[in-house]
Amino acid sequence: MTWQATVLTLFPGMFPGPLGTALAGRAMERGLWSLEARDIRDASTDRNRRVDDTPFGGGAGMVLRPDVVDAACAAAIPEGDARPLVFLTPRGAPLRQSLVRDLASGPGAVLLCGRYEGVDQRVVEARGMIEVSIGDYVLSGGELAAMVLLDACVRLLPGVMGAAESAEEESFSENLLEYPHYTRPAEWQGLRVPDVLLSGHHAEVARWRRAQSEAVTHERRPDLLTSKQRRDPAPRAPLHPAASPA
Amino acid sequence: MTWQATVLTLFPGMFPGPLGTALAGRAMERGLWSLEARDIRDASTDRNRRVDDTPFGGGAGMVLRPDVVDAACAAAIPEGDARPLVFLTPRGAPLRQSLVRDLASGPGAVLLCGRYEGVDQRVVEARGMIEVSIGDYVLSGGELAAMVLLDACVRLLPGVMGAAESAEEESFSENLLEYPHYTRPAEWQGLRVPDVLLSGHHAEVARWRRAQSEAVTHERRPDLLTSKQRRDPAPRAPLHPAASPA
Repeated sequence: MTWQATVLTLFPGMFPGPLGTALAGRAMERGLWSLEARDIRDASTDRNRRVDDTPFGGGAGMVLRPDVVDAACAAAIPEGDARPLVFLTPRGAPLRQSLVRDLASGPGAVLLCGRYEGVDQRVVEARGMIEVSIGDYVLSGGELAAMVLLDACVRLLPGVMGAAESAEEESFSENLLEYPHYTRPAEWQGLRVPDVLLSGHHAEVARWRRAQSEAVTHERRPDLLTSKQRRDPAPRAPLHPAASPA
Repeated sequence: MTWQATVLTLFPGMFPGPLGTALAGRAMERGLWSLEARDIRDASTDRNRRVDDTPFGGGAGMVLRPDVVDAACAAAIPEGDARPLVFLTPRGAPLRQSLVRDLASGPGAVLLCGRYEGVDQRVVEARGMIEVSIGDYVLSGGELAAMVLLDACVRLLPGVMGAAESAEEESFSENLLEYPHYTRPAEWQGLRVPDVLLSGHHAEVARWRRAQSEAVTHERRPDLLTSKQRRDPAPRAPLHPAASPA
């Protein structure tokens, strides 16, 4: 079964872009997922194909109209389509690997990319959109955020990663940053690989790596070590009641 | 002066990709920034252009060799080049708008994209790389993360955004999520825009928006309301001692 992604955007030409190469591109060629980018502008009934208007209450920027976004959703989502609708916005909840896993285990996703100031909140709520932010920085639009979310999902689809890469995935669940990696040459510019890694002593290697992970997490991400904010919380209830698209 | 971005990647064909269109693409056409994507593989001295090897100490995945990455850096960074070197990695410190601003105010950036398991830590440290993560999720590589970082930087370069968009930027500094936006029609599918936004009463509009921002931040990002983890901390010391590239 093909995992189906639909992106609603004002810049459909950006897609598939980087998702058409490397891991995601090969998975697409093998039919493990599909990507359709639809132009929000096609849903405009305005003679000049306008999609936005000034914000009520005043302020900078333009806002995507609710009727246009709703029509774009209606055209993209067939009757009975069980895919969640995700709106990429700096107002959203932070993207976490747990949401990525939920989405990847379902039939696919419909992604709405914001541009301008934002999207009229009425259609966001009426359509039950999941509002997601990929991080605490400002992008020029939601398109790169959508690509990030899709890349994260696609690598988890069955058959996309090899066994080795899948094993790596496991380690991410531990709520610690990764230990440092070393490879050949064993000595480079006078810098030697830590002796323990050459010892062949598996238990000591594991202990050293664990200590390194804890140290770097403590230094860079103390927030992950508190119980309240976990990098990768326990899986939640599935997003999609029945994973059967129309 | 052109802001110069150099990306070291195993997939140079991914660039400029989405950065070649819309706001970033127009800024590139106007000469406000430049982008060079360099193939790490060109720095391999191996007959088969190999760039990676198995990790010392065992484990899944492959690690980019320090000599290859170092040679790729040396070839990409001319003598006297003051641009910071950023390594996109899930081990990194979280990307924040403050780092984006620091980078955007300098001469440019050199970005190293990880693939496989990772990069030998010796070259990361020897080259003084800034290790950055764009979020708590796993990507198939650092390329999309590099694009996210570049997009965030480019929109801040002088002349890229209009005055209206620049004003929006200000509001992000307040450590609150944005209030909801509304535009025409004032009534849509029986849903009316909140009355206060139609009142013309500027002070009340401002008060309502502030309350909305606080409410959504409290609901979705309580971490931003504590003093320890600020979305957008005060600017740090500049990354680049003298902003004059060779």
